[in-house]
Amino acid sequence: MRLYGGIEAGGTKFNCIVAAGPDQVIAETRVPTTTPEETLSRVTAWFQACQHPLAAVGIGSFGPVDPNPSSPTFGYITSTPKLSWQNTDLAGAVRRALNVPVAFDTDVNAAAFGEYCWGAARGLDTFLYITVGTGIGGGGMVAGRRLHGLLHPEMGHVRVPHDWQADPFPGVCPFHGDCIEGLASGPALQARWGQDPATLPPNHPAWELEARYLALALVNYVCVLSPQRIILGGGVMTNDFLFPRIRQEVQQLLNSYIVHPALLEQIDNYIVPPGLGERSGVLGAVALAQELVSAI
Amino acid sequence: MRLYGGIEAGGTKFNCIVAAGPDQVIAETRVPTTTPEETLSRVTAWFQACQHPLAAVGIGSFGPVDPNPSSPTFGYITSTPKLSWQNTDLAGAVRRALNVPVAFDTDVNAAAFGEYCWGAARGLDTFLYITVGTGIGGGGMVAGRRLHGLLHPEMGHVRVPHDWQADPFPGVCPFHGDCIEGLASGPALQARWGQDPATLPPNHPAWELEARYLALALVNYVCVLSPQRIILGGGVMTNDFLFPRIRQEVQQLLNSYIVHPALLEQIDNYIVPPGLGERSGVLGAVALAQELVSAI
Repeated sequence: MRLYGGIEAGGTKFNCIVAAGPDQVIAETRVPTTTPEETLSRVTAWFQACQHPLAAVGIGSFGPVDPNPSSPTFGYITSTPKLSWQNTDLAGAVRRALNVPVAFDTDVNAAAFGEYCWGAARGLDTFLYITVGTGIGGGGMVAGRRLHGLLHPEMGHVRVPHDWQADPFPGVCPFHGDCIEGLASGPALQARWGQDPATLPPNHPAWELEARYLALALVNYVCVLSPQRIILGGGVMTNDFLFPRIRQEVQQLLNSYIVHPALLEQIDNYIVPPGLGERSGVLGAVALAQELVSAI
Repeated sequence: MRLYGGIEAGGTKFNCIVAAGPDQVIAETRVPTTTPEETLSRVTAWFQACQHPLAAVGIGSFGPVDPNPSSPTFGYITSTPKLSWQNTDLAGAVRRALNVPVAFDTDVNAAAFGEYCWGAARGLDTFLYITVGTGIGGGGMVAGRRLHGLLHPEMGHVRVPHDWQADPFPGVCPFHGDCIEGLASGPALQARWGQDPATLPPNHPAWELEARYLALALVNYVCVLSPQRIILGGGVMTNDFLFPRIRQEVQQLLNSYIVHPALLEQIDNYIVPPGLGERSGVLGAVALAQELVSAI
């Protein structure tokens, strides 16, 4: 059995795994995100201590990143607001320490790819994976290719209608104020309601507003990309009760304009939680590593 | 020289061409859009009267359409609000009358493909073509593949912030009211200002608002898809003075969040008019026909 390393590089922790797939997980760990030097030396030391020969390592990283393999800064975290991580050669550090091929993409593209290989996007070629947590981000595939383009999508920064009378909250995004991340991320919930979102009961008006905003963003994603399915992951989406509310709002907003059974009759199967649960990202990184090896 | 037919099927007219490329145009005509029977018989009769042997015909059509070659209704106009055109087998009618292979896609994907082969998107693999006219629509490519997905994008129906105090106009979209098509299409301009948009001078406040709304939509497209370039065509965009205003608004809205020279320093080269002028669609249909023949 060929083994791969997977790294989900997040702003608060690095999830690391040694696996051949979702049913062949050999070892797993979490390393807190501190400085690049400390974090990366702990991550690579853990893989070395595992003493399993790895065919390749995949990384799905917070960003912005440079995911273009032909660029001189491929595999770097670039202009992130986390200052000590700016211009960090993540892929290079792992490659040098472990001496294996390294695949690299955004955290959300990695998660999307994991769902494509083993989760809720199997059999599809055009779909999105959206995370709603500390931030809001999205990755995905179009016609079987991962979304990159100029750099990579920044789906958390779409603008949506904001009724300032009903919701005078200005949003928390330091760049845009009331983009969807500014209005509906975990920190936005915390700031608007003055309490940890985990303590807000399901009948709190916070969630009605949250479902409405997320539905507005999803409608925009549907209109721009025409995905065959949208997978919603991240901490905020562990509140299962949000799913039926978001689906209903999406249908109301689309108002039967897009005539397709997936949206009209089978929306429960269109807006779904991740098939891999909390492991979409780290297993997606494993899938990136597998893909790299089969392409070499 | 191998010749191809191109048909740009629009709600008010069908543009038809016989060509081998933008510099080898043999014949061109326009047929007004009336009933499907009358329109299609005039279109096919014109191609027959041309008496040039065609290797294939490409069609870029108004929609919604079914662009999936493996679907039983491939090449149909499906659930369009133009009732007499609902469930019209456009590709089949042309194939039967002219006895040639027929390629088929949305009008905006055809235009995007024309720009990719011969116009402002040469050398790119991820970009958008947006038309702003009687409606607003968008097509494009991601990693060299045309956008399809569930059906095809409906970019005119994204939601954007709408300041009802500054602009109490409710929008003209019969499905969504103030989606971007409802707020910024030609008919929206006509309805909001009570006059033909062609008569509104460049310093009229209509255009400041128009640039602002279109910039909001473009920012959403950039955040979802990360295009390497956005081409803006259609009747409204023949008002050249809109381009610098839209570019400036896009930069203000993005607020340097996406750190890339294309957006920060070279935006004149990022948001551009079509390289093929008004022929993007019909030449794009020719390009679809060429692609089909080389794939056969």
